[in-house]
Amino acid sequence: MLGWPIDHVALVVADLEESAKLYAKLGFSERYRERIAVQDVDIVGMRAGDATIELLKPLSPESPLVRFLGDKPSRLHHIGYRVDDIEAELVRLKGLGLRLIDETPRRGADGNRIAFIHPSSTAGTLIELCQSAVQQ
Amino acid sequence: MLGWPIDHVALVVADLEESAKLYAKLGFSERYRERIAVQDVDIVGMRAGDATIELLKPLSPESPLVRFLGDKPSRLHHIGYRVDDIEAELVRLKGLGLRLIDETPRRGADGNRIAFIHPSSTAGTLIELCQSAVQQ
Repeated sequence: MLGWPIDHVALVVADLEESAKLYAKLGFSERYRERIAVQDVDIVGMRAGDATIELLKPLSPESPLVRFLGDKPSRLHHIGYRVDDIEAELVRLKGLGLRLIDETPRRGADGNRIAFIHPSSTAGTLIELCQSAVQQ
Repeated sequence: MLGWPIDHVALVVADLEESAKLYAKLGFSERYRERIAVQDVDIVGMRAGDATIELLKPLSPESPLVRFLGDKPSRLHHIGYRVDDIEAELVRLKGLGLRLIDETPRRGADGNRIAFIHPSSTAGTLIELCQSAVQQ
């Protein structure tokens, strides 16, 4: 099997504009920018080939992402993998005995439908499944 | 600009075989497996579309990766970006004022030539440039 392609890699950042500027300087262009209030984050997506570097800035000081970041300027947070049929993948993963954070997909950035696998089932690494609004 | 495509995302893992098994269970196939003694790591690369999830296991207890991992079963370590001409990119990045860990490329996994940018120049996130032995 080919494995899921990487849709995005997400970093929690302390300063969203500084980080976006850094990636722009390195040669990445901005793909999307939005606030997802229900997830308490501002997001900037920078184009990395056909994947995205997703910069996440927690909105409130109570966000678990603030504790995750600590005093670092940025920290790698999760890998989002692109799937064609997110419901079918969630059924398959449940059948494999994996624990899911999201039993049904919710809304992510850029119109994507997303679901997280619980890190207790992935040796501690946070993995997101991500079905694009626009099929590629 | 399109930004560099993601070549690989690297995770430090406590148990290489358990992690490789986990990714195999998720549907990833093994792309390469090797020991890079000079970097004090065993590496398993799992295919994620045309990118790779690179599992890194430090060989000696003195490795900085052991401290980085702490008591976690795995931790996201760096993003490797694919470039066509690594020397030219290093010259460009130096011209932009970025600090480099590797001024000249060294050998990475799978025959790649790699160079790390110093995290002090990338807001704390470790970034690797990676030129494939086989141009894609």
